[in-house]
Amino acid sequence: MADDETQMPDSNQPSGRRGPAEHERRAQIIAAADEHFRRYGYDKTTVADIARAIGLSSAYIYKFFDSKQAVGEAVCHLCLGKIASELAIIAADDKPAVDRIRRLYKSLTAQGVELLFNERKLHDIVAAAIDGRWPVIKRHEKALLALIQQIVTDGREAGEFERKTPIDETCRAILQTMQPFLHPVMLEQNFDDVDENATIVANLVLRSLAP
Amino acid sequence: MADDETQMPDSNQPSGRRGPAEHERRAQIIAAADEHFRRYGYDKTTVADIARAIGLSSAYIYKFFDSKQAVGEAVCHLCLGKIASELAIIAADDKPAVDRIRRLYKSLTAQGVELLFNERKLHDIVAAAIDGRWPVIKRHEKALLALIQQIVTDGREAGEFERKTPIDETCRAILQTMQPFLHPVMLEQNFDDVDENATIVANLVLRSLAP
Repeated sequence: MADDETQMPDSNQPSGRRGPAEHERRAQIIAAADEHFRRYGYDKTTVADIARAIGLSSAYIYKFFDSKQAVGEAVCHLCLGKIASELAIIAADDKPAVDRIRRLYKSLTAQGVELLFNERKLHDIVAAAIDGRWPVIKRHEKALLALIQQIVTDGREAGEFERKTPIDETCRAILQTMQPFLHPVMLEQNFDDVDENATIVANLVLRSLAP
Repeated sequence: MADDETQMPDSNQPSGRRGPAEHERRAQIIAAADEHFRRYGYDKTTVADIARAIGLSSAYIYKFFDSKQAVGEAVCHLCLGKIASELAIIAADDKPAVDRIRRLYKSLTAQGVELLFNERKLHDIVAAAIDGRWPVIKRHEKALLALIQQIVTDGREAGEFERKTPIDETCRAILQTMQPFLHPVMLEQNFDDVDENATIVANLVLRSLAP
């Protein structure tokens, strides 16, 4: 538990984070937390465990993070950031927008399944983050929405996609259709057919985008 | 727990159910279970509680149901059946297929939200049923798929919808796009925007169905 003396909140920073200084220390804490969470799970890891792993006190960790959840958010951000980066590479590609939409669904699904099977405990943290409405999830959804918008804009400019529907509505609706492949609980409950489902939903979305 | 003497399995019946006789007794058990589950939740209700409520022994209940889960499935079936019946009325209407698709999303969402807010403990049973892959969920999905197929077939025949895509693919993809409004966990996590999201997804689906 943090006590007020060790917290030293910095009012210029978003809640849960501490000053811009000592970047490396912060990265070191996140790396240790990431390793612990992957191995033992979020619930079974304490801030003291993370501190001990890198020879620090819990109080020192609370200089950087308000709470265990703040550490969890940072690890979650790292994990979702990796997924978003792969999607960003697809979105920025110079292939036709139609191909990029298809690859977005495929990559999203493949990365979700990978997390589910190979990084089960990270998968659980993402599920907990969604359930707890951690801000990191909203940020991730915004990032995905921006990538969808990038591809739809390109597709409209290239004449691949219709232009009548407000682009904001189109993109938000597409993000909704990705939920069964995005959401850890949905992915887990439907993983038998998830590849095929992602393909047929991408097809449906592409028919809706046709000029 | 059931012991073999009181179980008397009937090999002509699907697992979890007992003989066609004594329909009324069975209905009485389901009604008592429904009431208990709504009030105390599935986890906190025992077969003995249900038996006591209607003046029977647990052993007698095990003549009708293999396990507490089998009773839970029957209650879940009742609850999902109510949702499916309202959707069936929409599907069988003589309004244009376009209207019926819109109303399907609206009704699905409204009924899900109603369950979440007014019948929280039933909502939890449905969530547990999905998580536990109870057969009742697959049956419900099949029922929904049949309703979608009914509307899409009508829409194709009336020239409202395109006919190139295999109808099976179209319908399964539509069912996937309904997941954020169908699934209790998704509904709960997104209920702030759920009405608007259902509307824009229905719009997207209708654009994909256009000839």
